[in-house]
Amino acid sequence: MSITPRTTVDLSALRQAAQRIAEHVHHTPIMTSRALNALLGAQLFFKCENLQRTGAFKFRGATNAVMMQSEDRLAAGFATHSSGNHGAALSLAASLRGACATIVMPSNSNRAKMHAVRSYGGTIVECEPTQVAREETFARLVTSTGAEPVPPFDDVRVIAGQGTAALELLESIADLDAVLTPVGGGGLLSGTVISAKSITTKGATKGATKGATKGARQTDVYGAEPAAADDTFRAFNAGERIPLSATANTIADGLRTSIGFITFPIIRDGAAGVLTASEASIVSAMRMIFEQMKLAVEPSAAVPLACMLEQPQRFAGKRVGLIISGGNIDLEQLPW
Amino acid sequence: MSITPRTTVDLSALRQAAQRIAEHVHHTPIMTSRALNALLGAQLFFKCENLQRTGAFKFRGATNAVMMQSEDRLAAGFATHSSGNHGAALSLAASLRGACATIVMPSNSNRAKMHAVRSYGGTIVECEPTQVAREETFARLVTSTGAEPVPPFDDVRVIAGQGTAALELLESIADLDAVLTPVGGGGLLSGTVISAKSITTKGATKGATKGATKGARQTDVYGAEPAAADDTFRAFNAGERIPLSATANTIADGLRTSIGFITFPIIRDGAAGVLTASEASIVSAMRMIFEQMKLAVEPSAAVPLACMLEQPQRFAGKRVGLIISGGNIDLEQLPW
Repeated sequence: MSITPRTTVDLSALRQAAQRIAEHVHHTPIMTSRALNALLGAQLFFKCENLQRTGAFKFRGATNAVMMQSEDRLAAGFATHSSGNHGAALSLAASLRGACATIVMPSNSNRAKMHAVRSYGGTIVECEPTQVAREETFARLVTSTGAEPVPPFDDVRVIAGQGTAALELLESIADLDAVLTPVGGGGLLSGTVISAKSITTKGATKGATKGATKGARQTDVYGAEPAAADDTFRAFNAGERIPLSATANTIADGLRTSIGFITFPIIRDGAAGVLTASEASIVSAMRMIFEQMKLAVEPSAAVPLACMLEQPQRFAGKRVGLIISGGNIDLEQLPW
Repeated sequence: MSITPRTTVDLSALRQAAQRIAEHVHHTPIMTSRALNALLGAQLFFKCENLQRTGAFKFRGATNAVMMQSEDRLAAGFATHSSGNHGAALSLAASLRGACATIVMPSNSNRAKMHAVRSYGGTIVECEPTQVAREETFARLVTSTGAEPVPPFDDVRVIAGQGTAALELLESIADLDAVLTPVGGGGLLSGTVISAKSITTKGATKGATKGATKGARQTDVYGAEPAAADDTFRAFNAGERIPLSATANTIADGLRTSIGFITFPIIRDGAAGVLTASEASIVSAMRMIFEQMKLAVEPSAAVPLACMLEQPQRFAGKRVGLIISGGNIDLEQLPW
């Protein structure tokens, strides 16, 4: 008899994750901007995960996975592959339990991101900058060390952790018509879908003045993706996973990733849509967040606002939550 | 019998200002950073006035002055001279009462700051970029229009308004050993001195474990100034006002101002000291706030942290409040 790995996440898993990570993560603030509301003709609520520990929402999922590990398995440590924020997140999360983390990183990774991993106590194993080399190096590492793998998104522990950001947003701001999150591998988006579907169908606090019918009205969840790396957009419309072309490139470096095998069905079945934004819109949105909101955000974090800038009519008059996914920028390479 | 203009501000004036402006200003968040605490060996509490409306603490003082104006004087409008944040602040504050604001600005002012003034409904009158031209143009304007002058710092209404930032900080964070604010004309610093002297001598909540003696222990207030524009540092040590040299220049553009006539005695009598920081330290501190705290701040706002970086031993083990004065940056001209 084979054991089927758990590949679903429900509200109960999210709530358990929220409780498990509560003492370690920041309950990040939600900010608003009159100027951006006026510009878009909508009410925007920004969940500021750039102010999360390690500078990104990734710390939620990594911490959930690390905290679920049994005590007797800690000595073997944790491992992942990441060119970005997940590596730093896992490094810090592991250190909170006195465990070590090994991060497989492409040799051409951003130096600042490598520095971040090391500063949180992680060990880097470099590999050739190809997907094949990355996966092979990672598999060898896990086999030889027995370290617990914590994938960056295609993992139910990680998805449940990432979903806690939307949980906080939806519990703080009533009557959101929509929530937009960036989508790369889909960990944040799938967690948000689960969160919004569970909470807002059950929610009893929807404003009577806004709901057309009595009772709960659901918050629509949208993925926000660079048009230059739009595999999730295409997959969502085709109904099946389509890997990202190897040549796809975007300034939103956190989103240069194909949608996952576990995350995709959750998104396909539960998201209201996937929106895209041009590179120019992403840079504009990033500038607006710096200038109007005085927040430092990385390009990926600006993609939800960028999508709104391209389709303001879709959200006119609505209450919209946007998850600012991270703020780890290279100040030497700002795109203006 | 002559009437002596009121040139003092006390806690009661500050509390009245706080109440008067409460519905218009943001009660800005106070942020912390584990990384910066570790770097400096102190506990830092950043009062984020970059997240204030118009992007700077200046909105507090301008709003207090505007809200104090009697209804029948509103039609004449308000006027000031400013190359920076005070002009935008007065423009928005005036608009909240349906009044107009005229801002005398040097013709070489930053385009972004001019745009901000106009976007809040202010009218700009340009003048030659000299102190004399600025004062003459301003005097002519006030005489010819009858507009109410609201000076950028040497004004008791403005000082009381600026002091409310420290009031919020001291009421939120107990047992601060010190508070550091940038000092240009001294509006923020003098308001902070009054706030800290009044509140912390009265404070009954000082921790028994920290105070050497029973009862209240006062929070020391320090001005933080660029070494390249250190007139307040020199004046404080000389005990008398020394105007800033006309050639003084610093990246901290908000602090290229001589200390005021009303603000200086308050600072001389009540501040614990004035610290200075080099241009290089200011840029370093600004980068740290962007990178570690994910906040966009203007150079002036980074000066308190820059002073701490130069004298970490002075604050080792202490609980220190820092007022982040503003976040209005020109993204095309970041200093790195």
